[in-house]
Amino acid sequence: MDRVLKMGMVGGGKGAFIGAVHRTAACLDHGCRFVAGALSSTPDKARASGRELGLEDRRNYGTWREMLEGERALPEGERIDVVSIVTPNHAHAEVAGAFASAGFHVVCDKPLCRTTEEARGLIGAQRRGGKVFAVTYNYSGYPMVRQARHMVASGEIGRVRKVIVEYHQGWLASNLEGTGQKQADWRTDPSRSGAGGAIGDIGSHAEHLTRYVTGLEPVSVCADLTSFVPGRRLDDDANLLLRLAGPAADGEARGVLVASQIEIGHENDLRLRVFGTEGSLDWRQEEPNELWHRTMGGPDRVLRRGNAYVCDDAKWATRLPAGHPEAFFEAFANVYRAAFAAMRGTPGPDYPTVEDGARGVHFIERTVASAASDAKWTDARYTP
Amino acid sequence: MDRVLKMGMVGGGKGAFIGAVHRTAACLDHGCRFVAGALSSTPDKARASGRELGLEDRRNYGTWREMLEGERALPEGERIDVVSIVTPNHAHAEVAGAFASAGFHVVCDKPLCRTTEEARGLIGAQRRGGKVFAVTYNYSGYPMVRQARHMVASGEIGRVRKVIVEYHQGWLASNLEGTGQKQADWRTDPSRSGAGGAIGDIGSHAEHLTRYVTGLEPVSVCADLTSFVPGRRLDDDANLLLRLAGPAADGEARGVLVASQIEIGHENDLRLRVFGTEGSLDWRQEEPNELWHRTMGGPDRVLRRGNAYVCDDAKWATRLPAGHPEAFFEAFANVYRAAFAAMRGTPGPDYPTVEDGARGVHFIERTVASAASDAKWTDARYTP
Amino acid sequence: MDRVLKMGMVGGGKGAFIGAVHRTAACLDHGCRFVAGALSSTPDKARASGRELGLEDRRNYGTWREMLEGERALPEGERIDVVSIVTPNHAHAEVAGAFASAGFHVVCDKPLCRTTEEARGLIGAQRRGGKVFAVTYNYSGYPMVRQARHMVASGEIGRVRKVIVEYHQGWLASNLEGTGQKQADWRTDPSRSGAGGAIGDIGSHAEHLTRYVTGLEPVSVCADLTSFVPGRRLDDDANLLLRLAGPAADGEARGVLVASQIEIGHENDLRLRVFGTEGSLDWRQEEPNELWHRTMGGPDRVLRRGNAYVCDDAKWATRLPAGHPEAFFEAFANVYRAAFAAMRGTPGPDYPTVEDGARGVHFIERTVASAASDAKWTDARYTP
Amino acid sequence: MDRVLKMGMVGGGKGAFIGAVHRTAACLDHGCRFVAGALSSTPDKARASGRELGLEDRRNYGTWREMLEGERALPEGERIDVVSIVTPNHAHAEVAGAFASAGFHVVCDKPLCRTTEEARGLIGAQRRGGKVFAVTYNYSGYPMVRQARHMVASGEIGRVRKVIVEYHQGWLASNLEGTGQKQADWRTDPSRSGAGGAIGDIGSHAEHLTRYVTGLEPVSVCADLTSFVPGRRLDDDANLLLRLAGPAADGEARGVLVASQIEIGHENDLRLRVFGTEGSLDWRQEEPNELWHRTMGGPDRVLRRGNAYVCDDAKWATRLPAGHPEAFFEAFANVYRAAFAAMRGTPGPDYPTVEDGARGVHFIERTVASAASDAKWTDARYTP
Repeated sequence: MDRVLKMGMVGGGKGAFIGAVHRTAACLDHGCRFVAGALSSTPDKARASGRELGLEDRRNYGTWREMLEGERALPEGERIDVVSIVTPNHAHAEVAGAFASAGFHVVCDKPLCRTTEEARGLIGAQRRGGKVFAVTYNYSGYPMVRQARHMVASGEIGRVRKVIVEYHQGWLASNLEGTGQKQADWRTDPSRSGAGGAIGDIGSHAEHLTRYVTGLEPVSVCADLTSFVPGRRLDDDANLLLRLAGPAADGEARGVLVASQIEIGHENDLRLRVFGTEGSLDWRQEEPNELWHRTMGGPDRVLRRGNAYVCDDAKWATRLPAGHPEAFFEAFANVYRAAFAAMRGTPGPDYPTVEDGARGVHFIERTVASAASDAKWTDARYTP
Repeated sequence: MDRVLKMGMVGGGKGAFIGAVHRTAACLDHGCRFVAGALSSTPDKARASGRELGLEDRRNYGTWREMLEGERALPEGERIDVVSIVTPNHAHAEVAGAFASAGFHVVCDKPLCRTTEEARGLIGAQRRGGKVFAVTYNYSGYPMVRQARHMVASGEIGRVRKVIVEYHQGWLASNLEGTGQKQADWRTDPSRSGAGGAIGDIGSHAEHLTRYVTGLEPVSVCADLTSFVPGRRLDDDANLLLRLAGPAADGEARGVLVASQIEIGHENDLRLRVFGTEGSLDWRQEEPNELWHRTMGGPDRVLRRGNAYVCDDAKWATRLPAGHPEAFFEAFANVYRAAFAAMRGTPGPDYPTVEDGARGVHFIERTVASAASDAKWTDARYTP
Repeated sequence: MDRVLKMGMVGGGKGAFIGAVHRTAACLDHGCRFVAGALSSTPDKARASGRELGLEDRRNYGTWREMLEGERALPEGERIDVVSIVTPNHAHAEVAGAFASAGFHVVCDKPLCRTTEEARGLIGAQRRGGKVFAVTYNYSGYPMVRQARHMVASGEIGRVRKVIVEYHQGWLASNLEGTGQKQADWRTDPSRSGAGGAIGDIGSHAEHLTRYVTGLEPVSVCADLTSFVPGRRLDDDANLLLRLAGPAADGEARGVLVASQIEIGHENDLRLRVFGTEGSLDWRQEEPNELWHRTMGGPDRVLRRGNAYVCDDAKWATRLPAGHPEAFFEAFANVYRAAFAAMRGTPGPDYPTVEDGARGVHFIERTVASAASDAKWTDARYTP
Repeated sequence: MDRVLKMGMVGGGKGAFIGAVHRTAACLDHGCRFVAGALSSTPDKARASGRELGLEDRRNYGTWREMLEGERALPEGERIDVVSIVTPNHAHAEVAGAFASAGFHVVCDKPLCRTTEEARGLIGAQRRGGKVFAVTYNYSGYPMVRQARHMVASGEIGRVRKVIVEYHQGWLASNLEGTGQKQADWRTDPSRSGAGGAIGDIGSHAEHLTRYVTGLEPVSVCADLTSFVPGRRLDDDANLLLRLAGPAADGEARGVLVASQIEIGHENDLRLRVFGTEGSLDWRQEEPNELWHRTMGGPDRVLRRGNAYVCDDAKWATRLPAGHPEAFFEAFANVYRAAFAAMRGTPGPDYPTVEDGARGVHFIERTVASAASDAKWTDARYTP
């Protein structure tokens, strides 16, 4: 059996949806144990949450700094191997930086942080600490996303001409933050979210998914960002034209990216279409077990998770036979599983790294800059 | 029974796909008889086509000019009431102008013509002749498109914030014009098609559908037009950001328009989504009998053609009970049927007019101008 | 151009849904002209309907007998070639028999008649007259149904093990006949419908579709017929187990047939699945342009009408390119078109004949007998 | 936090697909710890599997009898609370009986056992021990299945007239057992599976799902069971007509049940449709997050998991927001979660009990009897 890692968590206390998702995903394959936490920004609330989740008192910390010190003081076999950071965005940089440079493995929620400057800091911290730093771009964990990546890489749709990536949500179509709803509150607050609203919260997933599947990088961006809901301080609707480049592209590829949180009735409707010179691919997060492959002149092909014909990487990411659907938790767990393999030094597929996170933050920044610009195209190239 | 109209046709001879569609659509309800034609630009070919279709010799003309003169010379009860013009785009302006100003009703395929100047000429010709001039934006003929229009107009989705309109095709993903395929040949030739490739051929449908359903007009456009296939002289892929205005809008609405003919595996995949402050609508041409209505907080609703709950305009456009699917021909026929009603002076719903056509041509021009511009936004307002 | 046939009609006057469908379908390809009729069982109503439809007075008959005599008295080039019979079922036998034995071509709605005895009479009449006798099993006219037949015949799914055919409707879930609704009224009246309710009205389509696609014939039937709506005199729900035989079968094939008119929310949901030793097929009438082909171990394949890869017979049945959906009218028209070709003596695909109709009537009878029997299996073999 | 239960497992060692599913599902919510096992029928293999899964040596038993004795010998706070039994069917009765009567909580895979006699024994054992005995009819764990149950119970579709339940698989369409494939091997062996093949393995799920959602019980059954694959000793295709009764029924309800493992291309396609006097419901396991509710005269309604409008029981069964799909594991985990709540004596929804299991075994027996009978109907009533 693989070595069971010890995991601590920062953020994710009572009422925080994403903390429970991380805990379930991380433990799905019994690859880690959740043993320490500083689960809220308020020490009392943090400890109350930890008690409810069964943490030992001595490892149920009031603040992340106490946790960092407390765990460092423990003998190596006892202290946490990895910290999972699931706070709102604004705290990512400081917390992740501290743990990473102290030599802990880090798993951090996306977007990585608020600015490219913070991102550079985190890349430095990871280098200093020398450990794994994974970012939970969880949609890349779906088996059929991996199958799509495999098919692009192996040339099954020829060279890539165009990408349409859409992320439709409707939950912020009204002034939900005004009701005190916690998720809406911090996501619409620039001081905690960063400069991007919808483009940061879900556009970052769209950007990563595109890059993950096609290997293409944004060259330039033309963005129209809007705040539809009166009083909202960040965009809740983002529509982008893109130019993309990379080895798989047929010249400079074209892109359309839509990320919106005011499209009523859409729940979490992430979709990626990739059009090549010889075929096209179509995947939707809400029906994640299938991938449509359209060909020039032949019938559509519908590939399904769990079948013998999928690639090894998709097989690795699968726990159940075909027809026994897998979904969000399993995809999320796959990011953890790949990162855990790297932490253990055992073979496994790749996982989104701190640099992937930095690219995402850079993309958000360039999109926000484009939205403020009268020029059609804003440079979006990332220099490592 | 309604008076049966006598129809002539220009273009639409052997090998022309769209001519047969017009003849079938026009006659579907037995509302007209096809009695005269100048069916090709070559007199011999024109007459051969007419013979095959059973035209009388004396009304099987070699050229449209002969037809115009020949029909004018006939007594009123015998001559054609209406001419249907289904040539490639470049011939529309001259032919339609001549018939319209001569006092014939005209039905003309879209796009109306190649330039706004030509369009202005046609508006003038229609005014001089004083008869009906319809443009076959056939997708507006679908019952559930009319239902969508009704729902927007009656406020069922609140005020409109955003529109996503997509028209995906893949048939021009390779150099089909190089093989001599007739449909591809003229559509990729600027002298016959006008300045727009995909944006003209199918983008014009997307523009009209949006306007038809929402009543919103483009205010500004930001376009990225591409010719992917080597050697092609017109765009085969168009991706646009839009700003739209009109009474139904919540301020200035946002739009995304995609029209592409290189997206392999997509056949004729026209889709319109309209997002309002209280709900959203979703319609797809390839499954035209249903309309999805999504609401804030409630289950999705799937409305279907033929049910008692649809609006009168959708009922008017329906010939079969629910579950007995109607499709392309019937929608096309509805444009003819509404125009025929106007020709007879009997009550009927509206139909796309010469001015709708002019707006479409203007939109294509502004889009092509935007594509050549470095500015993000190009003015797209239409002045009648 | 093909010779335009002259068509008369019996039944199908005002308020009769199916008469208009037949007229539109028959004329869709301009292959016939509707010139005579006896459109109702009441002479006054018949003539009023004919006037509304533009029939000449002298050929707008009060009764079918007058029409038979009147047309026989006309010179050959003027009299009708074909009569279309669209009355309620109980009148089929007498009318069709008279016209067929008098040497007219006949197109008759399904089910052919009420009893196998009547059916034998019609077979005799057709033989005496020696002309075409087609039965409008219209669902066999869909291109992708023909593609399915082709794939079974050419062994693409191996030998057939099992068929599931379903015909779900909900419009008779309440006592609609009690409201005077005309369609419901005669369909629930044994004296006009025959012994079968749902099994006759729509089960007969299911039976024919199965036979058409697979070539298999029922060997034995086990039926559970129910009248759910209080006071209803015929079944409104039919559930059957079947054993089937034929050259394509893998031994004796199994079948499940469901035909119901009380399944609320289903409109006209006819679906056929055929399972073979090497693959399976799946087709639905409400999305008729696609056919799913599932294979052992490979991705699903979705075939679509209008593509180069479909069989010749499917191509023959297609008028529009892929993605421009065709539907109910076109399928219906294909039955007429094939029958018209036979009437003209020109080549064309086959069409459902009087014997197909007789087999359908026999199947209804055996199903009703099974429903009354305590034995599991009732013999359903048809002896020509 | 809820008390963490200690779980042992019998069966589910290396290569056993379902053992891993049970372990993941049981631990998904951190509600239990897997601490003991007798994971194979061969002691060596059992211990090797346990080592791989990280069991302590002293609780890594060679046989289930050793485990029963070993655990009984431990102090109460240390010994297992619950045993999960995931062996092939033939071992269920003896193992579950022993643990249940010894006062352990039991979770047993379905079908409960091979004969009604064995089932009676297990009911007795459960009564003697007085503890929880749950059967993993896992499909009842889906939130939208619970929503469907709620809607039937609250009369939203009126009284139930008809049920169509289908379970389509294709993986046994060829002689897989002949290749030594372990899952196929025991499932096609009467000595290990019991008298039912497809009807036992998956038909039992269909039977339970129907009963769970509607509350209706089978009154009589008419079955056609077939073994299509040459040499196979159990049915691989089951087609049934049913009569059902219960408080929700409109008189005696009709049913159609299809369970097949030779329908190529279908993976795990379980579908339930319930037709009432005022509406109908439609749910599919492969798209489990949605439930279609069709109404008389209104648009279809598509309900989705995670929305505020679903019933409390569906909310209880949900871990993620709408649009973040949940699937097989979560549904499976819900059965464990409900059973765990009962074990702890805390409030929770119901779970499938040993009596539900007994009813399932009885249903399989009556179906097999019907298949051998010439009478149409075989009594299927269960007497507790």
